[in-house]
Amino acid sequence: MPAINPQRLLGDLRQLRTFGAHGTGVVRLALSPVDIESRRWLVGKLREAGLEAGIDGIGTVFGRSRADGRALLIGSHTDTQPTGGWLDGAMGVIYGLEIARAFRESPESRDFAVDVASWMDEEGTYAGFIGSRSFCGEPVGEIVARARNREGQPMSEALRAAGIADRPLARMEAGRYVAYLEPHIEQGGRLEAARKRIGVVTAIVGIRELRITFRGQQNHAGTTPMDIRRDAGVALIRFANTLDAEFRALAGPRTVWNIGRIELSPGSASIVPGLAEMVLQFRDPEATRLDALEARVAALADAANASGSINCAVSPFDDPVAPTVMNDELQEHIARAAEHHAPGAWMHMHSAAGHDAQVIASRLPCCMLFVPSIAGISHDFAEDTSEADIVLGCQVAATAALSILRDGSPR
Amino acid sequence: MPAINPQRLLGDLRQLRTFGAHGTGVVRLALSPVDIESRRWLVGKLREAGLEAGIDGIGTVFGRSRADGRALLIGSHTDTQPTGGWLDGAMGVIYGLEIARAFRESPESRDFAVDVASWMDEEGTYAGFIGSRSFCGEPVGEIVARARNREGQPMSEALRAAGIADRPLARMEAGRYVAYLEPHIEQGGRLEAARKRIGVVTAIVGIRELRITFRGQQNHAGTTPMDIRRDAGVALIRFANTLDAEFRALAGPRTVWNIGRIELSPGSASIVPGLAEMVLQFRDPEATRLDALEARVAALADAANASGSINCAVSPFDDPVAPTVMNDELQEHIARAAEHHAPGAWMHMHSAAGHDAQVIASRLPCCMLFVPSIAGISHDFAEDTSEADIVLGCQVAATAALSILRDGSPR
Repeated sequence: MPAINPQRLLGDLRQLRTFGAHGTGVVRLALSPVDIESRRWLVGKLREAGLEAGIDGIGTVFGRSRADGRALLIGSHTDTQPTGGWLDGAMGVIYGLEIARAFRESPESRDFAVDVASWMDEEGTYAGFIGSRSFCGEPVGEIVARARNREGQPMSEALRAAGIADRPLARMEAGRYVAYLEPHIEQGGRLEAARKRIGVVTAIVGIRELRITFRGQQNHAGTTPMDIRRDAGVALIRFANTLDAEFRALAGPRTVWNIGRIELSPGSASIVPGLAEMVLQFRDPEATRLDALEARVAALADAANASGSINCAVSPFDDPVAPTVMNDELQEHIARAAEHHAPGAWMHMHSAAGHDAQVIASRLPCCMLFVPSIAGISHDFAEDTSEADIVLGCQVAATAALSILRDGSPR
Repeated sequence: MPAINPQRLLGDLRQLRTFGAHGTGVVRLALSPVDIESRRWLVGKLREAGLEAGIDGIGTVFGRSRADGRALLIGSHTDTQPTGGWLDGAMGVIYGLEIARAFRESPESRDFAVDVASWMDEEGTYAGFIGSRSFCGEPVGEIVARARNREGQPMSEALRAAGIADRPLARMEAGRYVAYLEPHIEQGGRLEAARKRIGVVTAIVGIRELRITFRGQQNHAGTTPMDIRRDAGVALIRFANTLDAEFRALAGPRTVWNIGRIELSPGSASIVPGLAEMVLQFRDPEATRLDALEARVAALADAANASGSINCAVSPFDDPVAPTVMNDELQEHIARAAEHHAPGAWMHMHSAAGHDAQVIASRLPCCMLFVPSIAGISHDFAEDTSEADIVLGCQVAATAALSILRDGSPR
């Protein structure tokens, strides 16, 4: 079987970490100068590994195997959050690079094709998942034309500044791929808590985000008697409190929800809020449960409106993300490889975070492999994974890659 | 008795309204160029009325009667909120001007002294009540040195720009005053609801403002299971919900409270809030009830801390304001005058908003008279009072003023 080279793998991860290093963390926002530099470096590494590689017109780094026959696509992303960790995304891309190299070095894998991608902007600096969406054939021109980062810089300008705006877009070749594999850090603490080293991903959660708005009557907080107030803030607090209790009753074992933002307007100590807004996000791997939760939000809004003194409206805060089920057979390949290299030290689990695999699943059978995040931390400078787990994850992925390619297309 | 001149009163109010007029409203922030212009105009009107008048070193307009003997001080403020009404404060000052004129015109009142003040910055553009505080002898130099408006402009700079920074400060002359009278619009809807035209103020509410802070652990809203979260936002919502119920149980008929501001940090849909803050304000004319409410907040915070997963801390958001009781005898003077001019159309009531009278009450017996606010609206361009009520209020105040001066110092 293809044997990965731990020192080469860790060496490349450490070198990628230098692009945008901030202490133990990394700041490498999509299309920033340091991101473009790191992409050029990656293209060089992929070419050294024998792939035809380049940066496409949206910034995705794509490396195509010269081997004949159908290919396995391995990818993730090298862009980071504003204060990101060194492994989120980067690890999966360097796994792809190392697996492509290991495949060339082993007689039994040499003839199988492994393509490698670092998708543009998974983290949404301009437009989340834009690289994988473009690769899947989605027309992204309009999205790019509208997208701006937090500083207001247009994405089109950043692409021009990087000198790649006029390049062709990498698109999925019809019939080329057996499957897509995305290795990633877990970004949570379940593997660590269960003392496991490999997670075989069953599904990526669906996400819904709702803006819930309460409109009452702004008024003087001294001279307006309590019984005639139409306090949008109090309505929000009651709603949120009831919602929390009702969601607890409806939740499955994998349901999570969050009220991450509340705003009272005008936001003065002396003024009864006339307007209050909250953003509610909830996630579950099952669409039926997401539907049930959303229906409960609507019922709570109806009840709030029936009480009469305020108006409650629910609207999407962001596009819903449908749950994505990982292919069963591909999961089996990863599970067998994990059991081979780390007997008893792996588990099935869902992903509670979003990944490019959820985009690519519309076109290809997909699978994901997780390694533990120390203390469950990610999207933070403190994000880390033990070297032994990084190395094990890459070897399990390499072994699974060969087994997937030998087996051919899953059902 | 001194008869006020309705057309002269309304004419001056309308003229003052032109300084900073915005549609039906007024924008005349303390020490803004238009505020200074209006103060110069007011000095001229007070001098025409026979008073020695000027602007002092903090911007207060002060007019001193030339009559012998002890004086009644009538005042309020001509500065406004950022989007203020035309009567809030302004009406009381022009009442003072009109009453000083009416006193001169009537033989029975001619020999009594009425001084008139427009206190600087009641609304707190730089430092609330700074004019009346300075007049009462409080050393305000340090406050002025630190004070800035919302745009960051230092108050000291605004005083220099107005050309008044080096003027002496008007200070209360020991032994000169019988009492302080502050006429004002109600800023609420109780008079209108009760179909009364004059309010005799019994007390000004005390105000307490608390910042309640919840510290938990910021985390990924997808990958952090519900049962291990330390969600500062959920802790705040539960606290606020319980507080509302408990305050309802503890409240007296005049208690009001408000949660005017909530902030979750970092404020992202995908991040479990690690920090949450709310600002709670509550008002009551009785200090004992304010104490009981504050003790309940502390008990709720203790209970939140005992639950273990988050830390709850309560701290002052702004200096507490003690309730201020209006002098009983002075109330009687106003009540008799009201019964004379508008039999049965007056009532006793407390003030739920703050006024300069609460500052001056530390040095002088104080009283206040309210006229109705149409629809209870104030601090808004739509603020208004019927002309008949404006005129009636001024006549009641003039009649009460003479009766107070004739009676001499109240007990």
